[in-house]
Amino acid sequence: MKRTKIKAVLDMANPPGEVFVQGWVRTKRDAKDFSFIELNDGSCLANIQVIAGNDLAKYRKVEKLTTGSAASVTGQLVASPGKGQKWEIQATAVDVISIASENYPLQKKRHTDEFLRSIAHLRPRTNKYGAAFRIRSRMAQAIHAFYLDKGFYYLHSPLITGSDCEGAGEMFRVTGLDPADVQKQGRMDFSRDFFGQEANLTVSGQLSAEMFALALGDVYTFSPTFRAENSNTRRHAAEFWMLEPEMAFCDLDGDMDHAEELVKYLVRHAMDHCREDLDLFMRFVDKNLGPQLETLVSKPFARLPYTDAVEILKKCGRTFEYPVEYGIDLQSEHERFLAEEHFKTPVFLTDYPRQIKPFYMRMNDDGQTVAAMDLLVPGIGELIGGSQREERLSVLEARMDEIGLDKDPYWWYLDSRRFGTVPHAGFGMGFERFLMMLTGISNIRDVIAFPRTPGSIDF
Amino acid sequence: MKRTKIKAVLDMANPPGEVFVQGWVRTKRDAKDFSFIELNDGSCLANIQVIAGNDLAKYRKVEKLTTGSAASVTGQLVASPGKGQKWEIQATAVDVISIASENYPLQKKRHTDEFLRSIAHLRPRTNKYGAAFRIRSRMAQAIHAFYLDKGFYYLHSPLITGSDCEGAGEMFRVTGLDPADVQKQGRMDFSRDFFGQEANLTVSGQLSAEMFALALGDVYTFSPTFRAENSNTRRHAAEFWMLEPEMAFCDLDGDMDHAEELVKYLVRHAMDHCREDLDLFMRFVDKNLGPQLETLVSKPFARLPYTDAVEILKKCGRTFEYPVEYGIDLQSEHERFLAEEHFKTPVFLTDYPRQIKPFYMRMNDDGQTVAAMDLLVPGIGELIGGSQREERLSVLEARMDEIGLDKDPYWWYLDSRRFGTVPHAGFGMGFERFLMMLTGISNIRDVIAFPRTPGSIDF
Repeated sequence: MKRTKIKAVLDMANPPGEVFVQGWVRTKRDAKDFSFIELNDGSCLANIQVIAGNDLAKYRKVEKLTTGSAASVTGQLVASPGKGQKWEIQATAVDVISIASENYPLQKKRHTDEFLRSIAHLRPRTNKYGAAFRIRSRMAQAIHAFYLDKGFYYLHSPLITGSDCEGAGEMFRVTGLDPADVQKQGRMDFSRDFFGQEANLTVSGQLSAEMFALALGDVYTFSPTFRAENSNTRRHAAEFWMLEPEMAFCDLDGDMDHAEELVKYLVRHAMDHCREDLDLFMRFVDKNLGPQLETLVSKPFARLPYTDAVEILKKCGRTFEYPVEYGIDLQSEHERFLAEEHFKTPVFLTDYPRQIKPFYMRMNDDGQTVAAMDLLVPGIGELIGGSQREERLSVLEARMDEIGLDKDPYWWYLDSRRFGTVPHAGFGMGFERFLMMLTGISNIRDVIAFPRTPGSIDF
Repeated sequence: MKRTKIKAVLDMANPPGEVFVQGWVRTKRDAKDFSFIELNDGSCLANIQVIAGNDLAKYRKVEKLTTGSAASVTGQLVASPGKGQKWEIQATAVDVISIASENYPLQKKRHTDEFLRSIAHLRPRTNKYGAAFRIRSRMAQAIHAFYLDKGFYYLHSPLITGSDCEGAGEMFRVTGLDPADVQKQGRMDFSRDFFGQEANLTVSGQLSAEMFALALGDVYTFSPTFRAENSNTRRHAAEFWMLEPEMAFCDLDGDMDHAEELVKYLVRHAMDHCREDLDLFMRFVDKNLGPQLETLVSKPFARLPYTDAVEILKKCGRTFEYPVEYGIDLQSEHERFLAEEHFKTPVFLTDYPRQIKPFYMRMNDDGQTVAAMDLLVPGIGELIGGSQREERLSVLEARMDEIGLDKDPYWWYLDSRRFGTVPHAGFGMGFERFLMMLTGISNIRDVIAFPRTPGSIDF
């Protein structure tokens, strides 16, 4: 008999009679003549309850099933008298696939997030992390569906790179040099290395995406990016996923319109398609999550220039750890105040002083600010950072000179401004930050399957 | 007026009257009273023809448009008298966005693939590479649609890893060590490095995927993988994308069924949704491509044990560069003979000698072969490599001991065989190899946006 996934079984409108399921035992309770087995196969949060009578052929073995063990069950799907579940299975056969040894770490009790991080290979078997990673999956798939529908092309930008997009940021080096050889030479001789020069792990696919936007129109990258920042915070990981759309013939307003549409689409998609998993976070992780997400999808995002935001912060009467004045890079405390308390919605800040933004952002007519936008959201701070790009060759070159950036390695990037340059814009959205906003999970380590942070590379 | 993409314009059933398009000039021909502009915006292969009369307000500027320049066009969409195009635009306004300087490398003539590789930032603007990267995009999006529909969860497995999945393969090292510091120390002291130990770029997400399959049921990874192999062939790149599904409660037959369904789905999807782009490859790149793809989607793939394949190769009367005998790792020439000449369809070889396969493959009852499968396809050789995994703890440990693999770093992997182990299977498909098969492109560098090969990391 063909196996049916438990999600499909629980979704059935009418019982088909007999079903065959396979999964793992979450709990087992023994009554006098029966065992009640809660079976889960990971396809959804809910378990299916299996009633195994002691008249079953292999009941002796069924009795041995421990939490975490695996079994196959055949039986009649019938209406369940228990509350909170529509169907249960009256087993006609239970086959034990494997018995989990008794030191299985996930016994039925609450575990701390810290402990579960130490068994990242097992934590997706818990309700919370199963839900988190199913939501993560669905949101990634929804991103592709969104862009397919809009006619955007998906670009696989290279992760190993010779250039540094931001002209900043600590990067990991990638090398094929043999450590024994390095020791013999007494140094890392990159001219003998795989690429014949220094190579790094990328911090952004943007520059590649610009090249493709100027060929294919609308494109996006969605892939891992890396930071070698030695900071052990709840918001930083060395390896994380970033979505970066890039649109030809697009200005800053179009960029913000697109970002707002994207974020609302994803949240609404989660509400529609991840209801059960999302409910877990609304009930047990963050009581404010539901209303917050409702606000997010229903109200327009605020938009205002950086300069106005600075005025609001200076006049708000709040004492911040980092004092606010024009020209500073806003801190998380400032960003969250604006989104959470002042506007009570996500807010786009625009037109930042050029000194605190990268070279590729388009200079505004005032000669002081650039056509940048950051999207600040409640609970997170900056979710998205983007800009209209500087498409004017002479302005771009002057800006690179101003900050002392060597133009030679960027010959290809500058080419795009020589040949058919057009206004274009894009942004980057940290996928983990989005997931943290969506689930209320407060530590980035808990939305990444196997997180990479300083000193941490088990699994 | 809102911009319409040229693809949408060309797809229109009825002309809406006025349209507004933006794009790049592929060619311009000047007649006495008109200019004919072929405008392309990357949304599709075809250009839209624009008729710009010399009575236009800015005709002086229009006359200056060179190949590669960018322009905005407003005009009436009317039936085209020319053949091969349904609509053309009678311009009422043409605005020059930018003029490409005259040394634009993509003048109207044929360029070699070698030359175009040297301008990888511009080649997506050509017909061939535009088509290739639109197909690549669509196939990646189709992979996600396929798995969403099947209820598989998308796992983002880590790229920076402390372990080596295959127990083989040359890996890139990832380090946060400062080269100046390395020189001072005279060596790479990994205990002082970012992760406190050696770290590498992954060659496979499989081991992570197994952990998640044993939690969520059916999962897949689709992300970059890396090989530091110093080989300059048409088939190898240092960075490439791999699709790796992993299925709980699945055996080798289920694994092959799934692989066959996937490959056929993707090819059929390309035929349905990338027709125009695919036609370019069928007409100009490989005349056999059309019939070959038709065969692929319509005929069942062959399946036979490695042992039988060896017999076929020994008896076929062909002299191979590498002689065939039981126990050898088949070479591309052998694989292609089987797929192209003997079976004339894709063929799964199964049950390889354990000595030539990795430790995690499930031992067959004969104690000699493992439940492996490779899918060999015409023109490419190995497209997919997979197996049922060894789910029995004692057999797995014995195998690791046999090949001298230290079990300690795999404590978490072995945990999955201690707690709720079940039969499971999966495979890896090189995404670039698939694209080469689909398009007839014979060099892997030409299906990757910015390829990474020895000595090559421009852009």
